Amino acid sequence: MRIVVDAHGGDNAPLEIIKGCCMAAKEIKDITILLVGRKNELQQIMTENGLPTDRFEIVDAPDVITMEDEPTSVLKEKQYSSMAVAFRLLKEDKADAFVSAGNSGAVLVGATLLVKRIRGIKRAALGAVMPSIEGPYIMLDCGANVECKPEYLDQFALMGSLYMKSVLGIENPRVGLLNNGTEECKGPELQQQAYQLLKANENINFIGNIEGREVPLGGSDVVVADGFAGNVTLKVSEGWGKMFSGVLKGMLTKNIKSKLAALLIMDEIKAFRKKMDYKEYGGAPLLGISKPVIKAHGSSDAKAFKNAIRQACAFAESNMILEIEKSLAKE
Amino acid sequence: MRIVVDAHGGDNAPLEIIKGCCMAAKEIKDITILLVGRKNELQQIMTENGLPTDRFEIVDAPDVITMEDEPTSVLKEKQYSSMAVAFRLLKEDKADAFVSAGNSGAVLVGATLLVKRIRGIKRAALGAVMPSIEGPYIMLDCGANVECKPEYLDQFALMGSLYMKSVLGIENPRVGLLNNGTEECKGPELQQQAYQLLKANENINFIGNIEGREVPLGGSDVVVADGFAGNVTLKVSEGWGKMFSGVLKGMLTKNIKSKLAALLIMDEIKAFRKKMDYKEYGGAPLLGISKPVIKAHGSSDAKAFKNAIRQACAFAESNMILEIEKSLAKE
Repeated sequence: MRIVVDAHGGDNAPLEIIKGCCMAAKEIKDITILLVGRKNELQQIMTENGLPTDRFEIVDAPDVITMEDEPTSVLKEKQYSSMAVAFRLLKEDKADAFVSAGNSGAVLVGATLLVKRIRGIKRAALGAVMPSIEGPYIMLDCGANVECKPEYLDQFALMGSLYMKSVLGIENPRVGLLNNGTEECKGPELQQQAYQLLKANENINFIGNIEGREVPLGGSDVVVADGFAGNVTLKVSEGWGKMFSGVLKGMLTKNIKSKLAALLIMDEIKAFRKKMDYKEYGGAPLLGISKPVIKAHGSSDAKAFKNAIRQACAFAESNMILEIEKSLAKE
Repeated sequence: MRIVVDAHGGDNAPLEIIKGCCMAAKEIKDITILLVGRKNELQQIMTENGLPTDRFEIVDAPDVITMEDEPTSVLKEKQYSSMAVAFRLLKEDKADAFVSAGNSGAVLVGATLLVKRIRGIKRAALGAVMPSIEGPYIMLDCGANVECKPEYLDQFALMGSLYMKSVLGIENPRVGLLNNGTEECKGPELQQQAYQLLKANENINFIGNIEGREVPLGGSDVVVADGFAGNVTLKVSEGWGKMFSGVLKGMLTKNIKSKLAALLIMDEIKAFRKKMDYKEYGGAPLLGISKPVIKAHGSSDAKAFKNAIRQACAFAESNMILEIEKSLAKE
């Protein structure tokens, strides 16, 4: 398995990215990491930090796309950036999957215009795998398409279902449409029209509208939303997760009494933290692209990035891109 | 202070509604509750439950609007329902404020067409007062208008600011526009155009776009959203709140050890529960109507409904409707 990594993408790049790659190289057997970036700089960091370089191939790319750069820079002025070079390696079959924690817009543009969409897919969707109390679910789109048409949402539902099935091994995943009420007639025109398409789609297990309340409580394996509502839901969930672990920490470090309490329930807290930590679920697959592309969280640390690589491997090992093509051919 | 109450609105009506009214009558001095509904039934319930009837005026209304009824039924076939009669009492100045936990659509239609909007207000907005780690904030619209125009959002910002100032006593409330990024250019066309109006609005303290992550973490006193995104955010937050208290309960009742831990941090848990309990914040004011209207949560118990009445009193005592009229006149 060959994974190409954009070494300079993300808030903590390149050090945390490289560390994450080393963790992945240690954990995942038969993996080769194509680390793309400023070769000398990367080699120096690995030496200084005593990081093992076996199972790494370092590919030189002189330029870097920053969070401030225009998404289209990946095609033009920054075509020799780590991200652009990594995308070309993916396109040329030099790698099985791509991972970057960099500029989301540039990842979307690069994947769509350099690697290309699956024939018949109207829009690629960013699908975040998120924790719920019942286990992980995928929400898509999470921000790639803030303005959507009903047929996009119908394709998101198909791609999300196939991802949960092929990559996370969930049989017959339940698909819910994020809406402001459960009744069929609810929501803006987009959701009302999408509901009818989803209802008629024989390739998915549509369970109807779901309200925001149900998202963290579980109940559906695939949550379909336009990129705006999806992004807001994702970030509100992150905010609550962050708030709650902060509150819990405050509660359990306040005084001697509470510190004793912390010791008594440490195992439960750890188990919960692990369950609700988005870092455990790796990054967000960009679905609808003809090759596996994973967008890791911009703030990824080594562990989060390692999990994103793990997810990229699972994506590449799955047959889901083939499955999407098959399903589209059926229509 | 005279508060008119729809006795038959809500999942737990009429018993929990009546109990909530009794709690309010006990707590709030100089309050008179106009309890509207099936007179005999209501009197019987009060007698059977030994509830004090002083400071109550029971107004007979033979009919009831259910959750299944069309919103417009409040105007036509159900014009003698508890909700419709209560709205007419408000319109005729027989009461200072209105509270119902009933059919949201019917509350919106009744308030808009029986009580009428403030002159110049294009749409009434449902504003939910929600807990954040920093304290309460108001989010509007929460579902009254799933399709919005930029100028509606601009008016929502003004009304939300005046509510936080006049009713919750927050000086110069910070207004954030819910969006999928902080940059000015972010979001769908609606948010991009609304941003420009909010930026130019001299009657508010606009702090720019805020992402979903910031909502539970605080940072703005007024969160402006279209009714769809607002409703989703509100319900996702409710879901997370519910999940966390469930998780915490599970953690602290698992075994002897964890039960001991619970005893040690009981005060902190109670304080947190109180802080994050939406019931503490009462109901959702329907802003833009010419009289104070509070929509209590459909699942309100006695305590939640009591707080909704408390909020209705604060709304009626404030001069915010006058303030809205003044601000609109300035424009």
